[in-house]
Formats: sequence, C-alpha cells, structure tokens
Amino acid sequence: MRAVSVKKNAQSRAFLWTFLSGSIIWFLPTPSGIEEQAWHLLAIFIATIVGFITKPIPMGAVALIALVTLVMTKTLTLAQGLSGFSHPTSWLTFSSFLIARGFIKTGLASRLAYLFIRILGQNTLLLSYGLLATDLVLAPGMPSGNARAGGVIFPLVKSLAQIYQSEPHDGSARRIGSFLMLTSFQGTQITTALFFTAMVANPLMAGLAGTIAGVEITWFSWALAALVPGVISLLIMPLIIYYLYPPRIKRTPKAKKLAQNKLAQMGKISNPEWCMALTFFLLLLLWIFGDSLGGIKSATTALLGVALLVVTQVLSWEEITAEKKAWNILLWFSILLMMASFLNEFGLVNFVSEQIQGFIDSFSWQLAFSVLSIVYFYNGYFFASKAARASAMYAPFLSVALAVGTPPVYAALVLAFLLNLSGCLTHYGTAVAPIYFGSGYVDIRVWWKIGFILSVVYLPIWLGIGGVWWRILGLI
Amino acid sequence: MRAVSVKKNAQSRAFLWTFLSGSIIWFLPTPSGIEEQAWHLLAIFIATIVGFITKPIPMGAVALIALVTLVMTKTLTLAQGLSGFSHPTSWLTFSSFLIARGFIKTGLASRLAYLFIRILGQNTLLLSYGLLATDLVLAPGMPSGNARAGGVIFPLVKSLAQIYQSEPHDGSARRIGSFLMLTSFQGTQITTALFFTAMVANPLMAGLAGTIAGVEITWFSWALAALVPGVISLLIMPLIIYYLYPPRIKRTPKAKKLAQNKLAQMGKISNPEWCMALTFFLLLLLWIFGDSLGGIKSATTALLGVALLVVTQVLSWEEITAEKKAWNILLWFSILLMMASFLNEFGLVNFVSEQIQGFIDSFSWQLAFSVLSIVYFYNGYFFASKAARASAMYAPFLSVALAVGTPPVYAALVLAFLLNLSGCLTHYGTAVAPIYFGSGYVDIRVWWKIGFILSVVYLPIWLGIGGVWWRILGLI
Repeated sequence: MRAVSVKKNAQSRAFLWTFLSGSIIWFLPTPSGIEEQAWHLLAIFIATIVGFITKPIPMGAVALIALVTLVMTKTLTLAQGLSGFSHPTSWLTFSSFLIARGFIKTGLASRLAYLFIRILGQNTLLLSYGLLATDLVLAPGMPSGNARAGGVIFPLVKSLAQIYQSEPHDGSARRIGSFLMLTSFQGTQITTALFFTAMVANPLMAGLAGTIAGVEITWFSWALAALVPGVISLLIMPLIIYYLYPPRIKRTPKAKKLAQNKLAQMGKISNPEWCMALTFFLLLLLWIFGDSLGGIKSATTALLGVALLVVTQVLSWEEITAEKKAWNILLWFSILLMMASFLNEFGLVNFVSEQIQGFIDSFSWQLAFSVLSIVYFYNGYFFASKAARASAMYAPFLSVALAVGTPPVYAALVLAFLLNLSGCLTHYGTAVAPIYFGSGYVDIRVWWKIGFILSVVYLPIWLGIGGVWWRILGLI
Repeated sequence: MRAVSVKKNAQSRAFLWTFLSGSIIWFLPTPSGIEEQAWHLLAIFIATIVGFITKPIPMGAVALIALVTLVMTKTLTLAQGLSGFSHPTSWLTFSSFLIARGFIKTGLASRLAYLFIRILGQNTLLLSYGLLATDLVLAPGMPSGNARAGGVIFPLVKSLAQIYQSEPHDGSARRIGSFLMLTSFQGTQITTALFFTAMVANPLMAGLAGTIAGVEITWFSWALAALVPGVISLLIMPLIIYYLYPPRIKRTPKAKKLAQNKLAQMGKISNPEWCMALTFFLLLLLWIFGDSLGGIKSATTALLGVALLVVTQVLSWEEITAEKKAWNILLWFSILLMMASFLNEFGLVNFVSEQIQGFIDSFSWQLAFSVLSIVYFYNGYFFASKAARASAMYAPFLSVALAVGTPPVYAALVLAFLLNLSGCLTHYGTAVAPIYFGSGYVDIRVWWKIGFILSVVYLPIWLGIGGVWWRILGLI
C-alpha cells in the first residue's frame, strides 16, 4: 500500500512538473523577435522534455499528448503534427528494433558470443576483449545497449563469474566477476558511440542535427568518424580497468571449455540463423556502400532488412506487430523530431543562436566548443536515460556550438559521440547501468571512480586524437 | 501433415500470383502517354492488391514488401514512400481501434447491449431491433464490424438462442436462433455503411476519394448523407426477414429477464466506464460539430480520444503498444493510401479516365453511374474481405464514375455505401460473415436467398430514396 502511494505521489509530482513547466513558459510574455506560435511550440516542447525526464507516464504517451495539445491549440496544423511519422529516421529506428529481435530469436547473438570466447577465452583480460568483440559485432544491428547487454552479454558474464565461484556478496566478487561486469558495462558505452544504429539516441541525434544544422549524417560517415578514437578506446579501456581494479583470477580455461560445450550443444548453424546472418551482412554492406553507390539511404536498408526477415520467415508478422518497444519508439521519436524541426522552422533555434553569438563573439570556436563539450559531457551526471538526455540537451548544445562558429558536421558528430561515452560516469545514466550495477559485483565508489578516470582518458582521445583524425577526414 | 502441406501449397500459389501479376505488368510495354515510372508504380500497386486478396502473408507484410520494392527500384523516393504515414486518415483508423478496445475493456459495450434488451426484449422482433440498436450506437466508436459482432453481439445472440433451447443442428434452429443470427449479421452490414468510423474500409475509401477525386469527406458529411437511406434500411430489414423467415418463438420474456440479471450483476457504472462514455460522447460531438465550429479534423478528434483514454487510465500505454491490429492497419493502410496518391499524381488515374471517356461519351452520367453501381455492388460475390475489396475496386470504379461525369462527392459516397451494403450477399464477403454463418443456425441457401432479396431492396432505397435525399443536401 505504502509503496503504491509513494509511487502515486511521485507520479503526481511528475505530472505537475510537466504541466507547470509548459504552462509557465506558455503564459510568459513572448520575447520580441519571436512569433507567439513559436513560443507556444517551445512551451509544449519543453513540457514534453520534462515529461520524458520525470516520466509521469511512458514516453510514448507523453509524446502523444504533446501532439494532441499542439494540434488542438492550433500551434501546429494536423498535417504538420503528423509529419514526423514520415521521417526516414523514425523508420530506421523502428526497423532496427526488429532486426535486433531477429538476432535474439535465432540464437545467432549467443553463438557469436561463444565463438569469441572460444577464441579469446584463455585469460581474463582476453576474455573481456572477447565480450567486447561480441558487443562490437552486434552493435550495428541491435540499436539498444540494453538489448545487447541484457539479452546477450550480461547473462554470459554472470555465468562466467559463477563457474569461477565469484559471487557478489561473499568477498569473492573480485575473483573475476567485478572485472568482467565493469569492462562489459564500459564496453557498451563505447560501442553505442561507434555506429549510427547502435543505440536509439543516435538516429535521434542525427535527425536533430539534420533539422537544426541541416547536415546529413550517413551511417558510413558516422562509423568512419568514430573509427579511430573508437578503436583506441576499446583497446585501452580494459587495460585501464585491469590495472586499476585487477581480477584475482588471471587464467580462464573453464571459460573456453564452457564456450566449446555450448557451441557443441547448439550444433550446426540453423537455417534461420543463416538467413539472419546473411541479412545482417547485406545490411552492413548497404549501410557502408549503399549511399555512395546507389543512393540507398540507411532507412531504406533497414526496412529492406525487416522485409527480408519476414520473407525468410525469421520473424513472423505476428512478432513484428507484437514488438511493443519498436512501436513505442516510433511514436515518441517521430513526434519529438517533428517538434524539433518546427522549432527550427519557426526561427527559435536561430533566435537562441543570435543571442549567444552576441555574448561570446570574442572567443575562438575551438576554445568555446571545447568548453561546451566538457560541460555537455559531465551533465551526464544529471540524467537517467540517454534518450531523454539526447532529447533535452543535444539540440541546445548543438545550436550554441553552431552559434560560436563550430563546423556543423564536426559539432554534430562530437556531441553525439560524447553523449554515448558519458554513459561511463554513473550507475544510472543509461538503461544498461542498473543491470550491471544491480548485480552487486561492483561497489558504488569504485564504479564512480573508474567512471571518472575513464572520462578523463576518453576526452583527450576523442577531442585530441579524434580531432586529428577528423582533420584528416576533412570534417574540421 | 497433409493439412499443413495443402496450406503451404496455397501459400506458394498466392506468392506466385502476387509476384507474377506484378512482373507481367512491369515488363509489358508501357502505353504511350504514361511515364515508365508510373507504369512500374502500377505494376507494384496491382501486385500489392493481388497480395491483399490472395494473402500469401498478412496484409501488413505485403504492404511493407511493396514499400521496400518501390524504394529499392527507385520507382519512388524514400520520402515519397514514407509519406503515407503522415496521412491523417491513417491515424484516425489507428486511433479508432484503440477506442474500440476501451469499449470492450470497460464493459461499456456489453452494458449498452443489455440496456437495449431490457427495454426492447419483450418479443423476438423488438429484440432484434434491440440488438441492431446496440450495433448502431457502438458503430461510430468501434471501426470494425468484427469487433462489434465478435466481441459483443454474437456472443449475446448465442446465449439468447440457448435460453430458448434453439440449437443449430437438432431442428430447433428456427425457434429463434436463425432469425436473430441473420438479422444481427445483416444489421452490421448496414451500420458499417452509416459512419466514417464504423469500419476500417470507410476511412480508406474516404482517403482514396481524397487522393483521386480531390473531395474531402468529413465525418459529419458521411453520417448526414447516410442518415435517411440508413434509417430506412435498418427499420425495414428485420421486417423483411421476419416475414420471409419467421422465428417460431414470438414472445421473449426470458431475454428481458436475462438482461435484468446481467445488469444487476454488473452493478453501478464503474469509473472507467464513465470515462469511456464521456470520452465517446465528446468524440461524437467533435466529429459532428468540430469541423464546422473550430476546424477540428476527425483524425485530431480520434487522437484526442486516445489521449483522453490514456490520461484517464482507461487504457494503459502497455495496452496501446500491444494493440497489434491497430499497428498492422497503420502499416498497410498508410502504404496503400500513399500508392493510390502517387498513382493519381503520376497521371495514371487521368489516363484511365480519358480512355473510358472516349468510350462512353454518349451516355448520360445518371445512366452510366447506375449501371456502374450495380456492377460494383454485385462484384461483392467475388471478394472475401471488404478492406481488400475497397483497396482493389473503389479507386478504379470511382475513376470511371468521374470520367462519365458523376458529381465527385456523390460518387465517392455512394460507392462507399454500396461496398458496405453488399456485405449482405454472401457468407464470406466480410470478416463477420463466417462468425454468424459458422454458428450453423442458417442454411447456406437461405443465407444467399435472403442476401439477394435484401440487395434488391437496398439498391432502390439507396439509389432512389437516397438520390432524393442527396439532391436535398445538394450533393447532386
């Protein structure tokens, strides 16, 4: 009873915050230079973001109410309000969730994990790279760190810890469990940064960058830009944790054995697994080369992937219509992108930029953007969801970055990368964190300390080495 | 085993037909006066319709594959291909399914049925009107004859028959069961014609009318046009069946008693039922007056309805994302509308109209449209789904009607009404038919005979009396 009423209270408060934030802005005097309609849009947009963060009801429901409010108040026409549902990025995201379902359903994801462990499982450090490699290979096709970690890697880490009698609360956590939990968690924060389709917030940010900065970020340009700093981060992260927080067990023949047994159990690759693997391979090819060869957009590729999985019967149509997460995301994602696009069209983004430009005209953009990036990175301490944070923070920071003169594609990509990487900081900043942290293998102080140390390593890698790489690519 | 392989064979054949129909048209020489791109669009469109009718895979999957094919073959751009998802009618249809869910979930639908039976249940004829009245009241908010009949009315008819010991196969069917089954089934064929939101094919046809004939059919204009012939049909149909196929039991005090008991069991109207009822009442008001008063479109109203059901917790967000039928329809509906709209934009509709115009220039449109209507009505014998039939037949017949000079709004409405009414003909023409027919109370010869007799009654009511009514309304 008590728990329910506490929850009810929190929910009412969240409702109140959402409603108040919107109403206050709505009734504030409209600044000169802005249409009243644009100001109302801003009010509803901000209420939506507050709703996304405080979550009185699920994000999809918040977005639906926002849409109805926009149209009923005549802030937007119905056609404008529905325009987000035709946005290619919405359907890319939607499709990615179905492709992820195929990986889990066919068992291909688990098979890949065991294959990497069979190859790399001889010692603890290499084992952690094996888990990272699994995450990395799955990342382009599973647009949710949650799905990769929760569905594939976390259960595996758990059983690896158990075969070495490493349990959370009896002093044996440090034998091997703590190390693997931490490296796997941190690995996902990097892999999500590497691919357009590795995380639902990524297409969202790319879509926002398109509507706000007018830059088109393709699947290939994203992966190419992330390549050098990404590989360095992936290689260096386990070493740092190994040094700072070493496991007691260093050799792991049992892990290799486990993988061998599991693979023997699984037997030969089944037909659906083949179909899934070939589809995924084709998708990768098209994501990488499609745009430059035949003008095939990444969303087209993703939709093709779903169609192929339906035709090859990897997924039934029943399973597709039952994939609630995909539909939920389609709703809030489309509505959010639509609002951002009209904020821009109604001149609000420009207005904010102009205000800031007057302010910091005297700095060089390099200095201004560096400061901006660092502030942006560490505001990761204040958010409990990357998607909510991307909705709330990406557009304003990008606008400011553009206002100080940062090259658009460069700013758009760096802010997208940093959002993902800053998942390293806390045990609540992303949906994956509570899974690993909740397992109890890692103490909260260690979690935060290592998170902070990694952040200090990542920033120079991404802003420094990355900067050189992006200069070579011609982005700066 | 055998059943499975028969099913597999039928599926392969359906696939083959779908694929062949598209390929043959694709590779035929393009008629002069038509762009190649338009011809390819037509090929894919026709394959989609064949897929909708033969159903090798569910309609949503067929539509998805069509979308991918259109974009991959560069027949349409990705943006064009996705444009249907922003169509207001798609979201109206989607929302209606969720509103229907609210009726069933809260129990409001059953309560209404028992209320009508308590009032009208004293004799068999009035009882049948009570069931019709339930269907009629629910129709605007439940966009599927299937949901009304399968979820509310059929189970009720079944239990009414049983309390009078009227069973299908022991000679007691004619006591009361046969009569109620037949009138309820035929009632749904009329109620689906009465409201924009009474049947999924209706918004589809209205959408097609918008893209092809450029006429906007509002919720109100639909209901107003259907009012006079609809009420006459509803009043006359049970009388005809009562005369041709009378029940042996004429007085039904037990039905009244049953309704009283059930209502006593249900107790007072619950909070969710109140919320549902008030929401529905508001929706009706807005559907009727919204457009003329505040320019509130029917899709906005429907989305508002869903938002209200979420806010009042009649429906959880979980239930909304789990409403597979709604998502399935959103997909195929949007893709079909999009294709129809580009068929028109690419000049194909015009092209066909011009060919026909040259042909039948010598007839008056009144004569030509009457012949057309009758052909259109009786092609109901050849289809097993109203939605598939609307997809395949509505657009071509409307184009021809326009080509011979029929006033657009009039043509659009009449063809929409007739599609629904012609569900009276067979025991397979609409999803509701197999439910009632399958109960075994009515012999196939009786079913078809009464269906045909009713069709002969309906055509003069709708084309004749309706014609006078529409002339008064200024549609002709």
